[in-house]
Amino acid sequence: MPLDLDATDAAPHPAWLPDAALAAAGGRRLALDLTSVDAGRHGVLDRAVLGTLATELERAVAAHGGAVVAATDSPDLTLRLTGLAGTTPADATSVRGDSAGEADRAAAGPHDGFTVVRADGRVTVTAATPTSLLHGWFEVVRQGEAAFTGADGVAHRAPAAALRMLDHWDNVDVHPVMGQVERGYAGGSIFYDAGVVRADLSRVTTYARLLAAVGIDRVSINNVNVHAREARLLTDDLPEVARIAAALRPYGVRIHLSVSFAAPMTLGGLATSDPLDEDVRAWWRDAADRVWEAIPDFGGFVVKADSEGQPGPFAYGRDHADGANVLAEAVAPHGGLVHWRAFVYNHTQDWRDRSTDRARAAFDHFAPLDGRFADNVVVQVKHGPLDFQTREAVSPVLAAMPRTRLALELQVTQEYTGQQRHACYLGPWWGELLGFRPWDGAAAEGATTVADVVTGHGPDAAPAVVAAGGGGIAAVSNVGDDRFWTGHPFAQANLYAFGRLTWDPTLDATALLDEWVSLTFPGASPALRDALHGILDGSWRTYERYTAPLGVGFMVRPGHHYGPDVDGYEYTPWGTYHFADRDGIGVDRTRATGTGYTGQYPAPWRDVYESPDTCPDELLLFFHHVPYTHVLHSGVSVVQHVYDTHFAGVEQVEAMVARWEEVAAEVPTDVADRVRERLAEQLRSAVEWRDQVNTYFLRKSGIPDAHGRTIY
Amino acid sequence: MPLDLDATDAAPHPAWLPDAALAAAGGRRLALDLTSVDAGRHGVLDRAVLGTLATELERAVAAHGGAVVAATDSPDLTLRLTGLAGTTPADATSVRGDSAGEADRAAAGPHDGFTVVRADGRVTVTAATPTSLLHGWFEVVRQGEAAFTGADGVAHRAPAAALRMLDHWDNVDVHPVMGQVERGYAGGSIFYDAGVVRADLSRVTTYARLLAAVGIDRVSINNVNVHAREARLLTDDLPEVARIAAALRPYGVRIHLSVSFAAPMTLGGLATSDPLDEDVRAWWRDAADRVWEAIPDFGGFVVKADSEGQPGPFAYGRDHADGANVLAEAVAPHGGLVHWRAFVYNHTQDWRDRSTDRARAAFDHFAPLDGRFADNVVVQVKHGPLDFQTREAVSPVLAAMPRTRLALELQVTQEYTGQQRHACYLGPWWGELLGFRPWDGAAAEGATTVADVVTGHGPDAAPAVVAAGGGGIAAVSNVGDDRFWTGHPFAQANLYAFGRLTWDPTLDATALLDEWVSLTFPGASPALRDALHGILDGSWRTYERYTAPLGVGFMVRPGHHYGPDVDGYEYTPWGTYHFADRDGIGVDRTRATGTGYTGQYPAPWRDVYESPDTCPDELLLFFHHVPYTHVLHSGVSVVQHVYDTHFAGVEQVEAMVARWEEVAAEVPTDVADRVRERLAEQLRSAVEWRDQVNTYFLRKSGIPDAHGRTIY
Repeated sequence: MPLDLDATDAAPHPAWLPDAALAAAGGRRLALDLTSVDAGRHGVLDRAVLGTLATELERAVAAHGGAVVAATDSPDLTLRLTGLAGTTPADATSVRGDSAGEADRAAAGPHDGFTVVRADGRVTVTAATPTSLLHGWFEVVRQGEAAFTGADGVAHRAPAAALRMLDHWDNVDVHPVMGQVERGYAGGSIFYDAGVVRADLSRVTTYARLLAAVGIDRVSINNVNVHAREARLLTDDLPEVARIAAALRPYGVRIHLSVSFAAPMTLGGLATSDPLDEDVRAWWRDAADRVWEAIPDFGGFVVKADSEGQPGPFAYGRDHADGANVLAEAVAPHGGLVHWRAFVYNHTQDWRDRSTDRARAAFDHFAPLDGRFADNVVVQVKHGPLDFQTREAVSPVLAAMPRTRLALELQVTQEYTGQQRHACYLGPWWGELLGFRPWDGAAAEGATTVADVVTGHGPDAAPAVVAAGGGGIAAVSNVGDDRFWTGHPFAQANLYAFGRLTWDPTLDATALLDEWVSLTFPGASPALRDALHGILDGSWRTYERYTAPLGVGFMVRPGHHYGPDVDGYEYTPWGTYHFADRDGIGVDRTRATGTGYTGQYPAPWRDVYESPDTCPDELLLFFHHVPYTHVLHSGVSVVQHVYDTHFAGVEQVEAMVARWEEVAAEVPTDVADRVRERLAEQLRSAVEWRDQVNTYFLRKSGIPDAHGRTIY
Repeated sequence: MPLDLDATDAAPHPAWLPDAALAAAGGRRLALDLTSVDAGRHGVLDRAVLGTLATELERAVAAHGGAVVAATDSPDLTLRLTGLAGTTPADATSVRGDSAGEADRAAAGPHDGFTVVRADGRVTVTAATPTSLLHGWFEVVRQGEAAFTGADGVAHRAPAAALRMLDHWDNVDVHPVMGQVERGYAGGSIFYDAGVVRADLSRVTTYARLLAAVGIDRVSINNVNVHAREARLLTDDLPEVARIAAALRPYGVRIHLSVSFAAPMTLGGLATSDPLDEDVRAWWRDAADRVWEAIPDFGGFVVKADSEGQPGPFAYGRDHADGANVLAEAVAPHGGLVHWRAFVYNHTQDWRDRSTDRARAAFDHFAPLDGRFADNVVVQVKHGPLDFQTREAVSPVLAAMPRTRLALELQVTQEYTGQQRHACYLGPWWGELLGFRPWDGAAAEGATTVADVVTGHGPDAAPAVVAAGGGGIAAVSNVGDDRFWTGHPFAQANLYAFGRLTWDPTLDATALLDEWVSLTFPGASPALRDALHGILDGSWRTYERYTAPLGVGFMVRPGHHYGPDVDGYEYTPWGTYHFADRDGIGVDRTRATGTGYTGQYPAPWRDVYESPDTCPDELLLFFHHVPYTHVLHSGVSVVQHVYDTHFAGVEQVEAMVARWEEVAAEVPTDVADRVRERLAEQLRSAVEWRDQVNTYFLRKSGIPDAHGRTIY
């Protein structure tokens, strides 16, 4: 019998906040205690969130029979705002897995986080800001009955990343080829109708609530490729942008805007955008002043400059520090930030030239600039040196700029991971990335991780970087106006896991999926829970199996990036090659004989990656050109690995399909049908990947499958 | 010093009708003699053309100082309309190269053609219809001074093909991906602005004049892929279609419409489009009645059915004869035609299945229907079994349907031949196709040709086919609203040559180019003339050299079809494969071991193509899968041929560029610059083709170039 998910055809799917998820708290006596608050110290954001807190409690008890009572009336749960002077209780037990550096973290974000005290069967959540208290409320919601029935104790929770952000690549206009949301696979934009900001932004507020429940508090609302229409959001359309800000504000979510580096010319009518030009500096200051006047809690600007055709400082012989700092200067008086993307490379490469290596580009451009960026600039670095592939080495930029606030950029939207037609749970991949130890071997315990770097705890981090808590974690959103928000209902789990990992990068992906199942499918049977784990836990590795092998990347159809095309990018200007010939495949990025990219890593990785003997199998073809007969650490040859993984990948998708049929009747029909439809397409596509990739390598290598399976 | 081509920035380029081309006639005394005409017998078309004849003479003498005089006043040139009872003089000398069957041709088109009598230094052109007389006028224009200074004599000229048609793949709307003109490379449509028929159709009349000057008298005005907007041309928009007809009519050009087989449902609201349904038959009759009421000289309908997603009779279990005949029945009372395309194949093939062969499809679908099509149906057959490739075998359908009016369909628009960025003069290719002898070896003299088949003179042609003069010749137009009409100024020569070949398929392509040069560049210096021949005469074979080798076809970027992508279609549903592996390449279409396609040809070709020993080199990979080491008749191996031709092709384009620079100063700057820009792109693209194709085959075969040239 289908569960009631409170979803109707008219309303968007509730995702991980169906009313049933509020049952434990909503059936109890709840209180909001603001007695120690000096309301005069609150800004527009805090005031909005205070109203939301009251509404949340009322909504919960209305649905589940509890009551909102006075704080003095023995409530089961008290949400207490301590005011900005509040401090972390000295006896708090950290609940983060990694307790080292806790003091630093508290220092970096003294107003973030909350404390949960459970004593005598009563729970009190205290926080210094309304938004942190709201996050505490959703922590209680997430725990359900366990929040009230566990042992007494005190726990302090604070987000690992001070900056936790989602980037929307939404356009106001609908592009005839790219659609409205660039690399969007969930319908149109929730912010914009075709050409204008939506009249009804209620869904944006619902979105903010989902984000607050997983701890995200910043959203950039337009595409980093800033087209003419979208550029005007910065100026003419500020009243409309303010409406979007107002729709996000009740849940403590601040907005950022992507801006064009050429704006002083295209919007301001200046003759230049040279960052060292006084008129340009003045234009940016004026622009920033106007933005903050309209939106007092505005977050800042996101910039894609000198990248894939976007304008940037190179046109004036300036570097990216010059470029970023002129914007930083403009937003600094308002406490604003500049997120400056490190995704800078030559997209008009010559495939004949094997010495040019796109993987080198971000490091070559940015590492020399370390220390030159203003304190309110965040350099936002894609997780790998290429472009959100299913498997890539970690970007060496993340280990190269201790005097710069670095943000890790992930991609929740599944551009290269199945485009929300394929079930591909990315939690495990992000866990690997965040846990990667740039200065230590894979097995080192307690070593500094990527997560440490982006939260201000990398080695040799400059004091300003430490003080600011680093650059945080950002990701491209996967949400659109689709009824299920994300096209594939299971893609909701990626958004959920991303948010939770920004609070605690050490969280286990399987445990996060379990949280998501509990909230999204309240009362899920063990069979349903097992099936969802069976389908999703290993789905990223399954996707990897049937697509591009051994870290070589791409092999997708150019343009839309869906489905196989082994040679699709092989002779293009994009710098994404595999160099397969009749003898072997892979990109030689060694110092000894290749592009020298391995030299961008600190030890031990510069050496681990340098030799095929030590390079991990899953990245072998990213670092080395090897014969098809090269034997992997797994014991099979490269070409046999290709065959084996591609057959296995399809078999695993077949198992996913079968698994879903066993439990689909336990969820509402619309969810069951949407998942069924997507799984059917995933199977069709996986078969196509398997057969094209296997055929390509059989034709090229001439080496038959050792097990005699059908290759065409 | 640039010649004066009468072109200004405001006006379209005059193409082959600059005023200077009228100098010889325009400087003389001209008369229009209508004394023997019974005007009462003239329809709307004839009356319009009569007016045009007078205007043409006035225009010529106004520009060049001659005079229009009475026929009794000793004119140098008399254009005499003989009335419909006029007959060919018994002593006329045929000027067609192929005199056999002349009587039949006269019988097939008794009202077409004209007679030129030159006696005592005076010239008289007589014809039975105003349009034929107009064609005679342009014959005189084309000959220039030679028309008046040659020896006395009588010549009768009649078009080989009774039906000579250009198909425009124009959409009323502008498609976000395909643009307005599908496979158009010369800007937007001359007929439509975005969404509507153009208010100013004067350019359409100018176009009709260009067509009349090369003998084309039918134009289909909308894309064979009939989208929703364009479907309405048949009904709601008839007044607008009538405006287009009126704009073409002064030059004797009739219009046809592409219609959707589903129109009875989509436009008529019926529940079916079943061709055997009485309501459907009645709907088509009513639709035709309304069309002819609005446009009395309307030509007929063009239909792409059951092809690449277009609706058709298969949906009702009917065949294509059933489908075509229901439309034929509707248009017959008006003397209308149905052009029914034979381009029917499965575009959702499985590349794994080597037994399915797209090349077989048209024959398999249509040959069994021979004799079933109504007399006013023309089955329009693409020249090859695939899709307008640079090199293909001739379609066996052309030799398989003696009881059907077959039209040859060519593609003037350069979809697969450089998209009007590359100079590629197609006259030689069309000459080969029209002169192909389906029932005889290549060397047979006087044997029946493809041109004979489509003009009603094939072996065993049914009486009705003979009487109608076969199905004629049609082609996809290359014209748009570009200032030069065709993007590349040299692409005008393709349109010119196509028109002239419909009158006489035996004309030599080099001679046709010479005609075009004389008209387009009046007074061209020998150096300019030589350069244009040097650039264009061999340009089709040059294009072939640097693109897909040995008839294998495609290897273009999917979608837009421009530029190389060797594996671009290799694993797609389109049925266009090359099956290259590390050992060899090509498609086995033999009866012995392949798809059996060779069996669709009559002898001797069924046997010539069956064996690699006798198969012509240029089609080897279309018919056979061979090792890279297979030695061609030319004496080199397949892979060495690939290398040699690709290096040679680029060298030839380099020579074209150099050749143009020698003479560019002799033409107007705008022509010189446009050609220069296009040649630069052609060279860039040819280098890309060379390097990608050579690299692909070196990587796959491992066989180095015998001459040690650079392959990447």
